[in-house]
Amino acid sequence: MQMTELIAKKRDGGALTTEEIGFMIDGYVRGEIPDYQMSAMCMAILFSGMDDREVLDLTMCMMHSGETLDLSPIHGVKADKHSTGGVGDKTSLVLCPMVAACGVKIAKMSGRGLGHTGGTIDKLESFPGFVTGISEERFFDNVNRIGIAIAGQTAEVCPADKKLYALRDVTGTVPSIPLIVSSIMSKKLAAGADVIVLDVKCGSGAFMKTPEQARELAEGLTRVGKLAGRKCAAVITDMDEPLGFAVGNALEVKEAIDVLAGRTEAGELKELCLTLGANMLALSGLAADEQGARAKLEATIADGSALRKLAEMVEAQGGDSRAVYDFSLLPDAAFKREVPCEEGGYVAHIEADDVGLVSMHLGGGRVTKESAIDLSVGVVLHKKVGDRVEPGESLATIHASDEGKAARAEELLRKCYTLSPYPVEKAPFIKNIVK
Amino acid sequence: MQMTELIAKKRDGGALTTEEIGFMIDGYVRGEIPDYQMSAMCMAILFSGMDDREVLDLTMCMMHSGETLDLSPIHGVKADKHSTGGVGDKTSLVLCPMVAACGVKIAKMSGRGLGHTGGTIDKLESFPGFVTGISEERFFDNVNRIGIAIAGQTAEVCPADKKLYALRDVTGTVPSIPLIVSSIMSKKLAAGADVIVLDVKCGSGAFMKTPEQARELAEGLTRVGKLAGRKCAAVITDMDEPLGFAVGNALEVKEAIDVLAGRTEAGELKELCLTLGANMLALSGLAADEQGARAKLEATIADGSALRKLAEMVEAQGGDSRAVYDFSLLPDAAFKREVPCEEGGYVAHIEADDVGLVSMHLGGGRVTKESAIDLSVGVVLHKKVGDRVEPGESLATIHASDEGKAARAEELLRKCYTLSPYPVEKAPFIKNIVK
Repeated sequence: MQMTELIAKKRDGGALTTEEIGFMIDGYVRGEIPDYQMSAMCMAILFSGMDDREVLDLTMCMMHSGETLDLSPIHGVKADKHSTGGVGDKTSLVLCPMVAACGVKIAKMSGRGLGHTGGTIDKLESFPGFVTGISEERFFDNVNRIGIAIAGQTAEVCPADKKLYALRDVTGTVPSIPLIVSSIMSKKLAAGADVIVLDVKCGSGAFMKTPEQARELAEGLTRVGKLAGRKCAAVITDMDEPLGFAVGNALEVKEAIDVLAGRTEAGELKELCLTLGANMLALSGLAADEQGARAKLEATIADGSALRKLAEMVEAQGGDSRAVYDFSLLPDAAFKREVPCEEGGYVAHIEADDVGLVSMHLGGGRVTKESAIDLSVGVVLHKKVGDRVEPGESLATIHASDEGKAARAEELLRKCYTLSPYPVEKAPFIKNIVK
Repeated sequence: MQMTELIAKKRDGGALTTEEIGFMIDGYVRGEIPDYQMSAMCMAILFSGMDDREVLDLTMCMMHSGETLDLSPIHGVKADKHSTGGVGDKTSLVLCPMVAACGVKIAKMSGRGLGHTGGTIDKLESFPGFVTGISEERFFDNVNRIGIAIAGQTAEVCPADKKLYALRDVTGTVPSIPLIVSSIMSKKLAAGADVIVLDVKCGSGAFMKTPEQARELAEGLTRVGKLAGRKCAAVITDMDEPLGFAVGNALEVKEAIDVLAGRTEAGELKELCLTLGANMLALSGLAADEQGARAKLEATIADGSALRKLAEMVEAQGGDSRAVYDFSLLPDAAFKREVPCEEGGYVAHIEADDVGLVSMHLGGGRVTKESAIDLSVGVVLHKKVGDRVEPGESLATIHASDEGKAARAEELLRKCYTLSPYPVEKAPFIKNIVK
């Protein structure tokens, strides 16, 4: 088998066989197939596409390139959630305790990642003493005992994806649906859950800019998940502005707790968690229908069980669970600065990526793997798309470690907002559900 | 400027600016842009294409990556010819002496190349003593004195193309019209001629399989040539079977001499040389029209001036010019073997590439740059497409260095022929002329 021939086959619209995909991925991981052939192949895949069988083969092959998690020591239905990523996305912090309180087992391994804020495990480190690096034994034990654990990745999961993604990142071959699907799903399948619910972001602040692209990705992800024998659904949600109000690690934890504590009556974050959660419960067989599932989830807020579940998890991973009920125990930035609106109007748009850059500027995100994160800093938006703003009213509060950074952040944040003199209608937040 | 951004721009159908193309090619030659980015770019170009300005920029940039030949010391109009390559292509050996005899200056630098036979300069080495490695001074002097010189490349022409072609060859990115055009034309423009006539082969034995592909390439080549200020035309010719009868170095020289000496009344080789030559003369301003040009070229055969021109060139480059008139002075293989046809019929197809492989098998071609060529060996076909063959009649004569090779070649050659019980109509040999 010759890689040049495989590239030509894909270039000309052919489908690669299972053996050919195996040859390609194994050879690439072993360093026998050079980067320059793999990047040409990725570009050919980008243009020629792949059918479901090819994507499944690619996904399984990448999954088997590394360690996979065997969740069988955990009793009950194990569920996992993945988001394609966006600004202000603290969904897991709300969703996981809620569904765990309903009886679904959450055994979640998370990476730290680079970006405008840390990942879920970075955010959880806002709880004093919280340990993300727990042993596999303790991880399984915690899930069996309290139904939930969120820990840092220890196993070497999908080295093929790691190598391939690094190559795609510098060769213009990231935006290929088959390659995105196999990259996401190889890692999700390796994580071992029975039920996988995906949050596919869509809009100017997301990788998928249009509902059509998002739908194509959502369908690709769920098809491969099902072909691999997992229960799978995807929710397509708006990322034309940041999700919710807070962007920044501890700030997002506080917003999540506000939802779990029932202090947030409605809003998109809660709606998203109810929608994702309802799908998780339904796929797990713990609710008969969507309505029943939502009622169960709402009940975990009303009766305090979701918040208690979060506190139990924090406690079980060595953290100070009192912080769940007392925000003064969570990191707090030294300087706060309002961002008063000069002229009034209606918020027409908030450039999510740029709000993310403000958080980065304040020190809330990681530029390289070695960067330290300031958990206390970030932004809390007060006005979202569609809201009326009076002249002088604050658009947002900046949480910063020093005044200079706060002043610059104010300037940057103001530019994230586009105002209109006319009332603005907001697009629906949940765009679609793909089952 | 970031190569990743340029790849994304081309991937998304954008046109690269002159500066971007310069950045890319210069950076690639200097080793600053890695192979894996360049191969992804080539695949993106293959799918997204390039407009004329981009192809011109790419061509000029590749041309300027190396040395260019300044033909100004040569008086008169300098013409060059290029063929996209095929089996049995001895066109230059006939064409160049004919047009030189008409007053066009032929200052041709040729590479040796790899393939089923050697290149033009290998074939010329069939003349005992012929030297292809002459100095630039002698090269210019010969052209000024006798109107023709064909020498081996000394200057480092288009290193960018050399590096890029080697990459394309192993990444499935050869068949891209903009990349083929810039590869061919960068070298042709570097060779310095005022008039460039291109022979674009088309058919199962050519790189361009269909007349549409061949036309697209022919148009691309001539457009860039003209944009670069040269006079340019392209002739699209059949390569569904080998050109003419001989495949093999000295055998092709003999066939070429037969045409120049007027011993070949008609046939495709002669027709091709008249067509290419007429375009060369017209573009050089040495003939008013096609008809006049063809008459001039025919006259060089009738009055012996074309054959004398070949003899003069051979003499001027140290070769034994008596061989032009006496084939016994040319290399001759030890063993000849006929290939009798088992059943009779009409020749429906001759697989040109496979005939080329027979020549390779006999030792007539070069597998690696270091391979030695046996100039004497090869194949002389007796039957071409459309011809009637009686049972037992010979399809071809094998010229081999030993009996074992001859026997194997006979077997292989027979498989190159497809016979039909019914008369076969031949497709037109000259498909199109693009001016």
